[in-house]
Amino acid sequence: MKKIMNKASDFARETVEGIALAHAGRVAMLNDDPQILINAQPVKEGKVGIVTGGGSGHLPVFLGYVGNGMLDGCAIGNVFASPSASKMEAMIRAVDKGSGVLLLYGNYGGDNLNFDMAAEMVDMDDIKTATVRVADDVASAPNDKRNKRRGVAGMVYAFKIAGAAAAKGHDLETVQRAAQKTCDNMRTIGFALSPCIVPEVGSPTFTIEDNIVEVGMGIHGEAGIDTAPMMTADEMADLALEKIESDLELNEGDRVSVMVNGLGATPLEEQYIVFRAIARRLQNRGIDLYMPHVGEFATSMEMAGLSVTILKLDDELAGWLRAPALTPFYTSENK
Amino acid sequence: MKKIMNKASDFARETVEGIALAHAGRVAMLNDDPQILINAQPVKEGKVGIVTGGGSGHLPVFLGYVGNGMLDGCAIGNVFASPSASKMEAMIRAVDKGSGVLLLYGNYGGDNLNFDMAAEMVDMDDIKTATVRVADDVASAPNDKRNKRRGVAGMVYAFKIAGAAAAKGHDLETVQRAAQKTCDNMRTIGFALSPCIVPEVGSPTFTIEDNIVEVGMGIHGEAGIDTAPMMTADEMADLALEKIESDLELNEGDRVSVMVNGLGATPLEEQYIVFRAIARRLQNRGIDLYMPHVGEFATSMEMAGLSVTILKLDDELAGWLRAPALTPFYTSENK
Repeated sequence: MKKIMNKASDFARETVEGIALAHAGRVAMLNDDPQILINAQPVKEGKVGIVTGGGSGHLPVFLGYVGNGMLDGCAIGNVFASPSASKMEAMIRAVDKGSGVLLLYGNYGGDNLNFDMAAEMVDMDDIKTATVRVADDVASAPNDKRNKRRGVAGMVYAFKIAGAAAAKGHDLETVQRAAQKTCDNMRTIGFALSPCIVPEVGSPTFTIEDNIVEVGMGIHGEAGIDTAPMMTADEMADLALEKIESDLELNEGDRVSVMVNGLGATPLEEQYIVFRAIARRLQNRGIDLYMPHVGEFATSMEMAGLSVTILKLDDELAGWLRAPALTPFYTSENK
Repeated sequence: MKKIMNKASDFARETVEGIALAHAGRVAMLNDDPQILINAQPVKEGKVGIVTGGGSGHLPVFLGYVGNGMLDGCAIGNVFASPSASKMEAMIRAVDKGSGVLLLYGNYGGDNLNFDMAAEMVDMDDIKTATVRVADDVASAPNDKRNKRRGVAGMVYAFKIAGAAAAKGHDLETVQRAAQKTCDNMRTIGFALSPCIVPEVGSPTFTIEDNIVEVGMGIHGEAGIDTAPMMTADEMADLALEKIESDLELNEGDRVSVMVNGLGATPLEEQYIVFRAIARRLQNRGIDLYMPHVGEFATSMEMAGLSVTILKLDDELAGWLRAPALTPFYTSENK
C-alpha cells in the first residue's frame, strides 16, 4: 500500500483540517468539529439553507462544494461511511435562518437513515426541512426502480442548481423543486479500470482484471451492470451515450451539460479525449452543448476510470447552472 | 496498459481538441493547429504577450493556464516532447501586439533550443522577446548550478505572477523581472510513488519498487536525489521542508504561498493531509501562509505522488499573485 497519510484512523479528520487551513476565511469546521464543515460566512437571514453529507474519500465531493452559491454545510464520515445523525442535526441547526433547510445528498442507505433521523430531531424545534436524494447512476437499478439508484457525480449539478436557487432568495419548496428537477433531467454512467484502497483496510477491497472495464461500477466499488474488454475512448463515449439514452431521451435541439468526471487516477488528458468524442457525437446530432464540466468532481480516491453525466437543461435550469458560485473547488463567474 | 484513448499517435491532438471544445469562447487553436492554443480573446493592443510551451502529459500544465491574467498562448508537443521552433514562432507572432513577448517555460533542453530558435526567427521582424526559464526543482542540481535545474510545478506561480504584471500594463522588462523574481523566490521538491505510462510506449518507462518513494524524481521520471522507504505524510512534510530550506531560507515573519501538487493518481485527501502538516509547521514558526494552492496543477499523467513548492512573497509578488485570473483551470476572483 502506498497511501500518503499518517494513521489510517486519522485520515478523514486530517483531510478536513487541511481543507479548513487551506481555505480559511471561506470554510470552517463547526465548533472545531472535523466532521462538520460550513461556509465561513454566516448564512444570510431568510436564505434557505442547503446541506449534504456522506463518507470521505470522494473529494471534491462533498466538502469542496461548501461556499457561496452552492452548499452551506457538509457532514463527513470516515472513508465510505455515513456521518451520524447527530452531526447532521448540529449542521442543520447551524445553517437554518428561519426559511428551512434542504437536505440534498446521494441515495445510500446509511445517509438516508441518518438524514431522516436528523430531520425528525430538528422538526421538534420547528425547523423545516425538505429532502432530495440524488439517484443519477443508471447502472444501479432499472428505470422503473429509479428510487433504488445510487447518487454519483451528478450530485454536483444538483448542488450547483439548488444552491443558485437558494442564493436568489427562493423559498424551500422552490429550492427543493430545482434540485428534484435537476435529478429528473440527468443520468450518469461510470467506467472503472482499477480499484481503490480504503485506508483502514490497506489493500484494494475488490479487484478489476487487467484489460477489463467494469461498466457501471459504483464509487465505492459496488457491482456494475457488466464487464467489458478494455475499449477505446471513442467506444467508451458510444457506450456511455447508449446507456444514458436508453433512459433519458435526447433529441435535436436539446441543450445539455455534459460532465466527464475522473474517478481519481485517470489523467485529465484522457478525460478530455472522451469529452471530445461525446461532444462531437452530440453536436453532429444538433444537440447544443452548454457549460461542459471536465475534471475530477467526484472521485473514489485512487480509482482509475471516469463517469459521464448528461443533464438536459431548460431556460430555468440553465440560468441556475450559470449563476455565480465560489467554493474551494468550484468557481463560476458567469461571464 | 489501461489508458483511455484512441490511437496513441492521436493522444496529444485529441486532448487539445477536447479542451478547445470544452472551453470554446475562452481558448482556441491557432488556425486550427492542435499544437498551438491561444486565448480566444485577442491580446489587447500594447499588452506584453506571455507564451509557454512543452510536452503533453502534464495537464493542467501548460494548456490549462491560457486565459485572462495568465498566458496568451501555449505550444504543445507530443507526450513529454518539445513542440517545434516553427510552432513557437507562429504563436509568438500571433500574440505580439507591439510590446514584445515573454517566453516563460520550464528549463528543459529541447524547449530551450526551440524557443531560442523561435526568438531568433521573430527578431528578424523586430518582435522583441525576453526569456525566463523556470528552474524550481531543488532535486535536479545543486544550488551553485541552479541554471541546470528542471522546471516543475512552480512554473504555475510564474505564469500567474507574470500574467498579472502583463495584465496591469507593465512593459516587457518589468514582466520579465516579475517572472524572474518569482523563480528566484521559490523551490520545489517532488515525491514519486509510481511510474506513468507514455501512450506511444504503452508500458511504464521506469519502475518504482513497492514501499519505496523516489525523492526528487522529475515529472518525466528523471532520476531524483534519493530513494527512501515509504514514509508517513508528516515525514514527507518534514523532508520537503528540509530539502527546500537547505536552499531557500525561511524565517519568522516571512509570508509564503505553499503549493501541494498532486502528480496524477494521488487522492486529493492525501494532498490535504500533507498540506496540513506543512501549514502547521510553518504557522508554529510564525511564518504567514498566503493563498495556498492544493490540487493537481502540474501532473505526469497517472503518476502517484506529489510535489511541494514554497514561494516567498513580498508585497509586490503578493499583489500579482492575488490579481484576478480566468483560465480553464485557474480562476481567481481576488475576493
